[in-house]
Formats: sequence, C-alpha cells, structure tokens
Amino acid sequence: MKADNDINGVIISSRIRLARNFNDYPFPFRMNNIQAKEVVDKVRCMVFDCNIDDLRDFLFVDMQGMNDIEKQMLVEKHLISPDLAISNRNSAAIISRDEKISIMVNEEDHLRIQVIHQGIKLNDALEICNKIDDMLDKKSNYAFSNNYGYLTCCPTNIGTGIRASVMLHLPALVMTGYIRNILEACSKLNMTVRGIYGEHSGALGNIFQMSNQVTLGQTEEEIVTSITNIATQVVEQENAVRNELYKQNAMAFEDKVCRSYGLLSNARVITTEESLNLISDVRLGIDMGIINDINIEKINQIMLLIQPASLQKFVGRQIATDERDIKRAELIREKIAICK
Amino acid sequence: MKADNDINGVIISSRIRLARNFNDYPFPFRMNNIQAKEVVDKVRCMVFDCNIDDLRDFLFVDMQGMNDIEKQMLVEKHLISPDLAISNRNSAAIISRDEKISIMVNEEDHLRIQVIHQGIKLNDALEICNKIDDMLDKKSNYAFSNNYGYLTCCPTNIGTGIRASVMLHLPALVMTGYIRNILEACSKLNMTVRGIYGEHSGALGNIFQMSNQVTLGQTEEEIVTSITNIATQVVEQENAVRNELYKQNAMAFEDKVCRSYGLLSNARVITTEESLNLISDVRLGIDMGIINDINIEKINQIMLLIQPASLQKFVGRQIATDERDIKRAELIREKIAICK
Repeated sequence: MKADNDINGVIISSRIRLARNFNDYPFPFRMNNIQAKEVVDKVRCMVFDCNIDDLRDFLFVDMQGMNDIEKQMLVEKHLISPDLAISNRNSAAIISRDEKISIMVNEEDHLRIQVIHQGIKLNDALEICNKIDDMLDKKSNYAFSNNYGYLTCCPTNIGTGIRASVMLHLPALVMTGYIRNILEACSKLNMTVRGIYGEHSGALGNIFQMSNQVTLGQTEEEIVTSITNIATQVVEQENAVRNELYKQNAMAFEDKVCRSYGLLSNARVITTEESLNLISDVRLGIDMGIINDINIEKINQIMLLIQPASLQKFVGRQIATDERDIKRAELIREKIAICK
Repeated sequence: MKADNDINGVIISSRIRLARNFNDYPFPFRMNNIQAKEVVDKVRCMVFDCNIDDLRDFLFVDMQGMNDIEKQMLVEKHLISPDLAISNRNSAAIISRDEKISIMVNEEDHLRIQVIHQGIKLNDALEICNKIDDMLDKKSNYAFSNNYGYLTCCPTNIGTGIRASVMLHLPALVMTGYIRNILEACSKLNMTVRGIYGEHSGALGNIFQMSNQVTLGQTEEEIVTSITNIATQVVEQENAVRNELYKQNAMAFEDKVCRSYGLLSNARVITTEESLNLISDVRLGIDMGIINDINIEKINQIMLLIQPASLQKFVGRQIATDERDIKRAELIREKIAICK
C-alpha cells in the first residue's frame, strides 16, 4: 500500500498556458493572410534571438507545411490544440526539443505559450512561461488594458490569460463512483474537470484534466496555488480510496490489474479505447507496487504512442482502422517486451 | 496452419480397461470383508511374482489406508475410478511407477486392468493389458462362460470386458457447434462420448472421452480398430474446422488464444472451470503453432495439477475453496514461468 502523500503516480503532468495578443494586429480570426504571416515571422525572429536556455534548440513548425498525420501527432502529444491542427490560417508552433515548451502562433490568440512538466510542477511551469512571456513582451507591444489586464479573443481568457491544468489518473474514484462528488466540488470551486481526450470525450483510461475556469480577479500565483491545493486533495482522496479497495480484497484487486496486464501484453488486436482502459489498470498496478515489470514512464510513453496518428508515424505509413488495431497490439507488446 | 493428419495435439490419451472376475469368489458387492481381503492379497502376490517389465516396480495402494485427498488425486489422474475412491470395501490399486498401468482390485469387478498411453496408442495399450491379463489368467480361475465370454458384475461389460477410450480436445468443434453432429454420429456407431470430468459433468475445457458402448459380439482388436478409426475421423474434422476458422480471421483467432494465455499466466485468482477453459484456448494455440512459450506436455501437466486434490497435494495441506483459487493461480504462473 502506498503513502497518501505520494502524488506523482496520480498526477501525470502539469501544464501552464498563457494567452497573449499583439496590439498592432487584429485578433487572428480577423487577420488577412499577410498579417498572419507577419505575426508568425515576427514571433519566430523574437524566439530565435532570445537567450532563454530552454528555448535554445527549438523546432519551428509551419502548420501549412504539415500533413494531417503529423499535425494529429502534435495534438496527441498535447503540443498543439485540435483547433490549430484544422485551421487554414497561416499559423505555426515553436516547440522546444524536450517538448516541454510549445508556443502556438495564430491559434485563437496571436500567442499561446504553453509549458508542460511531468508530475505536479505548476510553479516550475509558470516560471518558464513567465520568462518567455517577459522576453516577448519586451520585444513587442502586448494588447493590455489597465482595467482588464491582457486582452484575449475569447472573454473567458481575459485578465491573466492563464490556464493552469493538471492531468490526473483517477481509476479508484471512477471505479467507486466517487468521481461524481469530485466533479461537483470542483465545479463549485470554479474548476473545470474533463476527460483528457478533447472537450467532448468521456474520460477514457480514467484520465482527467483539471483546470481553472476564471482568469480574472486573481493573480497567476493565486491561480496556480489554488489548482495545486485542490489537485493535491483529489490525489489524497484517490489514494485513500485505492488503499480502502485494496484492504477490502487485496487478491481481487491484484487479480484485476494483473489480468489487465496479461491482456495488454498478449492481445493481437486492440482498440484505442480498450488499450487505454487496460493501461489505466496497469498504471494503477505499477503505482500500487503490484506490477514491477514495467514503470510509470514507460506506460505513459505507450499511452501516447497508441493514439492513431502517433501509431501511424511509428509504423511509418498510413494504415486502415482494422490494421491499426493489429499494429497497436504489436507496438504495445514490443514496448512491454523491452521492459522485461 | 497444421496438417490434417497431425492428430497428437487433438488426442490427449488412449486408454484400455479390462474387467475380470475370479470364479471362486462372489462379485465384490456380495463379498464379506474376509473374502475381499483375500482377493486383494491374492492379486498383490500374483503381480509381485510376475515377470512383466512394465510392472516391475509397482506401487501397491491399500485404499483403506489412504485419506480423501490422496484418493481424489488418484481419481484426478484417472488412476482409480471415483467409485473406488468412495468404496468402503477392502480394496486396492496396483499402479506402475510411470502411472501408465493401474490394476484396481474390488471395484465393481474383482479386477479392472487399465493401461493409459499419451496420444493415439490403443493397440500398444491393449498389448500390455493382454500381457497382464494372460499372466493373471494363468495364476487363477477367471469367471468365464463359453457362451458369453468374461462374466462381469454389470451386464454392459460382459463378453470381452473391454472398454477402449480416447480423450480428445475439440475446441473448434465446440466453438462452431459441430460437436452436436459428432455426438449424434458417435451414438449411432455405438460410441459413448462424454465430458472428461466424470459421467455427469459437462465438457469442461472442451475435452471429451470417446469409448465403446458394446463389449459383446466383437473381438478386442475389432473394438480397438473401430474406436481408432472413428477417433481419427473426429480429429480430421476438428483440424479442418480449426483451419477454416483460422482462414476466416487469422488475427481474431490468434488474438483469442493469446489473450487466454495472457490471462492464464497473469491471473491472481482463478477457478478450476475458468482455468480449464483458458487452458483449452492455450492448448489450441500451441497446437496451431501460435503459442511457443509453452508446450503440450507442460499444459497437460498443468491441466492435471490444478484439480482440487492435486492442488492441495502440491500446496502440502488442505485449503479452503477461496484460497484454492489463489493457490491455483500461483501454481499456474509458476509452471508457465518455468517454461519461459
């Protein structure tokens, strides 16, 4: 059984995203092609010339030069938004080599500065965001109002323009149905909780993203502290329920996670949905010390690779849905076998 | 895909059993204790003095000196009948060290001489049975009628006193429902087909025993030839259906057997019934060349060891049903891990 204060198995990652716009251009949805291209070039130059260590060796991704699979892969890695992937606008993403930093240009706003960290590290992520933000601010004119703060295309982002979010793995709360209480409580605290794979999907693999609803009337630090505190409480509840379930019937608990591991490492045909649900059990098993053949980092990597686009990239060509389920099973077996 | 003429994966074992009685004693159900003891001693001495190689190093099992688990274990290994295990009569079993030969004394008849071989080897089994039969016949007076042949307690055994049977693994015929046609056809040919685990149970693990109904009016050789021919035809049908199923959807086929292997080798709690059904899939997978981590002999051994009494013997003590499902899973994992 694991200590209640061990939170890194439950919190997969932390993300900070800042929305910013330039004063001297209309919002992206009102820009013409020339303006859009100007903004992309301007941001590219500013980043190229900057002396921020984390951005020293970035990748510049011209969205119009990417095919659908490549774009979808970036979405699956949470490096760009689904909206940017389908946009016809002249747009780009600037991505650090370690894929922790991503600056989207001409998404809903001129700039979306995003930093992702493993585990619960919102403060660290905010610090890097601020560094990039300051650098860009110095080199340009942000759209800023003394009354409202940063001006953004959508009013929900106005003010700090910050969205802080954590990705949580909550299998025990889902299994017992307590997740409903958590969702209600979070809503009352002005938090949004949703399934990881897009705004409209259910919580495949028991993975949820929790983020702030409000960007106005609080400082960035207050927002980060508030999310960190609430997430920590949710983790404590998840761990308490896990321990309770384990205490009630340790063998049934171990049986469930081990069987899922057996299926995941032996299936020859498997859908994304089934994979994510089995991975959820295996992740729980690893975190509870029941499964030792494979570690959390490896299972996180597999979770990413089995997404449709990443899978096709891995196989090296476009594949039909049927074959995808076969290749997905092959990939999972291969990745698990390496661990042994 | 496997050749249609490869029958050893489908036929697990062949068994010949002869029923014999002595002229100078009443049938077992009418004997008193003294007579019963005399018959046991008499047979023991005859076997002790014989010069049959296969019986040189036999084990004499006094049924009254055995506890229930030990008796049940012999039943699970098909070395004694369930009836002998629960009999209060003075009775015994003489078992060769390799457990291929078993002579039950004072079951329904004074003598039940049984020889089991792996694969389809009824002729070899009959040969050894005959050798033992001749030896015992020379040293005693069998109850024999010139009109009817060997006299037995139950009229269904009268004549040759022979029961020839083969144990078959027929997952594809069960899966497709064709097994019903096979059962009907066998019945018309005077064959009895039943699930392996006792006369009243279903066919757990898709394993069937096929044996002759009639012991009168045919020679031993004719009966053996007839069973061998019919069994060979059933095997051909089983293999044809397997190949057809595989051809229809090779990936779904492989997926099914591999998932079963994954569950079997990872479960922490498992019932006898589920084990036998998963073992059936794995056995099919081995036989079709899909699973290579483990061989047929090993899976046959596991199939035997997971039975309640054998399992308790393995653990070394009596265990409750709940714990049995845990120990069974442990044993299976251990046995499969050794193969890898």
